[in-house]
Amino acid sequence: MRRWNGWGDESVAFALNKDALGFLAQRIGTGTPVADAEFGQASAQLKASRLPEHRLIDTSPEVRLRNALGQSLPDWLRLRYGVIDTAPDGVAYPESAQDVRELLAYAALHGVALIPQGGGTSVAGHLTAPSGTRSVAVNMTRMRQLLYLDTESQLATFGAGVFGPDLEAQLRARGYTLGHFPQSFEYSTLGGWVATRSSGQQSLRYGRIEQMFRGGSVETPAGTLHLPTFPASAAGPDLREMVLGSEGRLGIITEATVRVTAAPAYEAFHAVFFPSWSAAETAVRQVVQAGLSLSMLRLSNPLETTTMLALAGHKRIISLLERYLSLRGCKQGKCMLMIGVSGRKSLARAALREALALTLPHGGVHVGRTMGEKWKQNRFRNVYLRNAAWQHGYAIDTVETAVDWPRVEIMMRAVESAATVALALYGEKVHAYTHLSHLYAQGASVYTTFVYRLAGDYETDLARWKSLKKAASMAIVENGGTISHQHGVGGDHAPYLTAEKGRLGMSMLRALAEHVDPQQIMNPGKLLP
Amino acid sequence: MRRWNGWGDESVAFALNKDALGFLAQRIGTGTPVADAEFGQASAQLKASRLPEHRLIDTSPEVRLRNALGQSLPDWLRLRYGVIDTAPDGVAYPESAQDVRELLAYAALHGVALIPQGGGTSVAGHLTAPSGTRSVAVNMTRMRQLLYLDTESQLATFGAGVFGPDLEAQLRARGYTLGHFPQSFEYSTLGGWVATRSSGQQSLRYGRIEQMFRGGSVETPAGTLHLPTFPASAAGPDLREMVLGSEGRLGIITEATVRVTAAPAYEAFHAVFFPSWSAAETAVRQVVQAGLSLSMLRLSNPLETTTMLALAGHKRIISLLERYLSLRGCKQGKCMLMIGVSGRKSLARAALREALALTLPHGGVHVGRTMGEKWKQNRFRNVYLRNAAWQHGYAIDTVETAVDWPRVEIMMRAVESAATVALALYGEKVHAYTHLSHLYAQGASVYTTFVYRLAGDYETDLARWKSLKKAASMAIVENGGTISHQHGVGGDHAPYLTAEKGRLGMSMLRALAEHVDPQQIMNPGKLLP
Repeated sequence: MRRWNGWGDESVAFALNKDALGFLAQRIGTGTPVADAEFGQASAQLKASRLPEHRLIDTSPEVRLRNALGQSLPDWLRLRYGVIDTAPDGVAYPESAQDVRELLAYAALHGVALIPQGGGTSVAGHLTAPSGTRSVAVNMTRMRQLLYLDTESQLATFGAGVFGPDLEAQLRARGYTLGHFPQSFEYSTLGGWVATRSSGQQSLRYGRIEQMFRGGSVETPAGTLHLPTFPASAAGPDLREMVLGSEGRLGIITEATVRVTAAPAYEAFHAVFFPSWSAAETAVRQVVQAGLSLSMLRLSNPLETTTMLALAGHKRIISLLERYLSLRGCKQGKCMLMIGVSGRKSLARAALREALALTLPHGGVHVGRTMGEKWKQNRFRNVYLRNAAWQHGYAIDTVETAVDWPRVEIMMRAVESAATVALALYGEKVHAYTHLSHLYAQGASVYTTFVYRLAGDYETDLARWKSLKKAASMAIVENGGTISHQHGVGGDHAPYLTAEKGRLGMSMLRALAEHVDPQQIMNPGKLLP
Repeated sequence: MRRWNGWGDESVAFALNKDALGFLAQRIGTGTPVADAEFGQASAQLKASRLPEHRLIDTSPEVRLRNALGQSLPDWLRLRYGVIDTAPDGVAYPESAQDVRELLAYAALHGVALIPQGGGTSVAGHLTAPSGTRSVAVNMTRMRQLLYLDTESQLATFGAGVFGPDLEAQLRARGYTLGHFPQSFEYSTLGGWVATRSSGQQSLRYGRIEQMFRGGSVETPAGTLHLPTFPASAAGPDLREMVLGSEGRLGIITEATVRVTAAPAYEAFHAVFFPSWSAAETAVRQVVQAGLSLSMLRLSNPLETTTMLALAGHKRIISLLERYLSLRGCKQGKCMLMIGVSGRKSLARAALREALALTLPHGGVHVGRTMGEKWKQNRFRNVYLRNAAWQHGYAIDTVETAVDWPRVEIMMRAVESAATVALALYGEKVHAYTHLSHLYAQGASVYTTFVYRLAGDYETDLARWKSLKKAASMAIVENGGTISHQHGVGGDHAPYLTAEKGRLGMSMLRALAEHVDPQQIMNPGKLLP
């Protein structure tokens, strides 16, 4: 069963062994476990629903609580400490576009806000119920069918509420794949990906969701927006690009047509180590700018590399590896690069060979497939680390941005140190490490993870998070990064959006939202504060 | 010197020899040459300018006439017959963003419309001065410098009025290329490409202008819109995608930052013939869906293939080629495919080999590089055919669309036959032929050329064109195509835009334009009728 107060399924355990805990204790001190609130205790706190009845809306506290919050750290704090200060008044489960239109009419009539949601995996506060207004969470996960597959044009149309694994299973049965694998894959949905401009781990091959999303249907307060599919068009601004990233402000995506490809015959992930960050960054820039047919490039900085090796759990094997790497010049400051290739075996291998050849002048040491295959096995499992860390009294949060190449390293250092300084004011240390999760000819995404100790009470932990988040976000903005490369804006990033869109740009986005939704009932408070 | 009433430079002659004229005469009858109006005669028709003075604005009839119209067929008819029923009241030549802001203030104060223009190559009526309102054409071609080249991120920032050859020369001097080569390349500008969502002949390698345009500056009546560069972003809808295709309705693009790449070490164009359209279409679909690193695929239908061979001028060589092709199975209904490859020689050759191998099962006959190199030589020269045809009493016009694969052949036949039926009502024949100019995994652009005889008077020729254009546009819309894949909307395609954007989508675009430009002084009447 889906865990109500943390990531994923209750049956999946992810243990931190003694060595891993020792590593964390040495870095930031020993954590003190916190007693979690009970589900019943938490749901009992919900105020009575204020909604007029509707056949599609469930107002039971249990269902409301399970659809109230996402996976941002403040949402976790609410759930773990049982401080449920915000929840929708009800949850609707539409099964058709007609149901969604009915909900929009209901919302307009009663002045009720609608909060569209897929799997509730937002880490940016997209799902928080607005205070002072009645609201309904619109859970789209019953609209999950493959409605049409055009094999000639390689286009598949799905109900927007389909989860990642379900979508891939329906496509694989026909020999196709979408190839969109964000870390949230198991619990996020197609509509959510589109609404938040999601990016998957293999975007180098398959593209971001922007490139995959070819058309669809959006139900808005002003009517249905049909987005027909064209291979390309010069006929004015692209309406799809207004729906992408709209985060529920324009309406509810009910159907999405996506570009699919034949499932790859061959896939492999390899690891390469570099002696230093600067060598590694130069090498990956050259690799990505060579335009080879790779499916993934993912570069960890020295501390992330150390952390991954420390948490890997196979102490003896890792120690042998490190001795080998040391002999080859990769010592203290070494960085790990994952390279993925997919497709026809001969072409995939040729691309890998070219990429490896480009790493050699920069001291790249290819260690084969073992670590890459391990990474692949755990690609959707690593996120359970957050549950495990919490049990030992540690919080884990991440921030991410993207920036052009000249500022990548500056950004990485600025974000890590901003967080460190922010928690030093509380006398706490932060274990902050970074990887470049997505690489482009133009630059890279910069994805930083923070591990730090829990204080043990809701207010202090919320205050610590706010300090850390603000410091990291300011560092992003000041160094010319986007406030999000892959998580979206929601409520948490909204204060920083003007820095990149500008005042005129923000007013254009607001004008669009107000035109389509003059009553402002669609996910109010998100994206455009 | 630039020709005032036709394509390109006056010094470039493009002759049709006797065989070519015989071919046309046989198809659609002998043309009767029309006497062109003189420049002085035409400019004398302009009504006196109604503009208040401004230091940046030239109101002389000569300059106004040279900036009054584009390259659409109705614009040609006006110029050739000397029926100048529309022209701006003046032409401004800004040299800086500050100049543009000054023009915007002037326009707002006096209620004057602004018509931004680059090289004036629009074939969709983007430049037509609105009737009933005073207007100024804002000629951007003095803003043409490479302002900044970031070699690490492979980004170049230019003044938006830079012409194609000038842009490439400034980049090539530093070892880079943009790789954007629309047929209008020699006389179109970067800002124009962005404002109309242009696509170049090698978009398979370099992408459409949408993919190249990474940021920039737009001066709008509501202020300056700065578009910062990010490698990618999930922070809400993409403002660049609202500027792309905005056709002057939101403001004037003053600077554009584009993605560049190292100039390719190797480039080649090869020709392959197929025995039939259906074999050719299946083959190119498989080639493009294989995702090989090609730079161009361009497939002519049987009549275009015949026409290109007939107009090539080398009768004996072509006849030998046709005998050879006939022996290899490519006879009456044969189709010609151009394949371009660019980049590292080894990779380019490998991609070409893979592509050629995929054509074999469909009867593809590779005839080497000669025809491809000829095509490359003439890539920007073929457009002069329109001047030559006019001299012999023929009009040439084109329409283009894009559609998913299942409807590509249907579309091609529908557009050709709609035009044929439309002119049959005038007792005239149309020589209509088509190529797929841009190929995508999802579908293709369908580009149809019409040659027909001139009537010899303005009204009849305008009426014929209107019939033909309407019939072809209706065929596009009815068969689910976009009203433009690469030429934009302007005034000529505006009546058909609602079919693809929908009423809600159109109202969203209008709301955006009205928000930024409440006085509606920016290129009124274009894009959004």
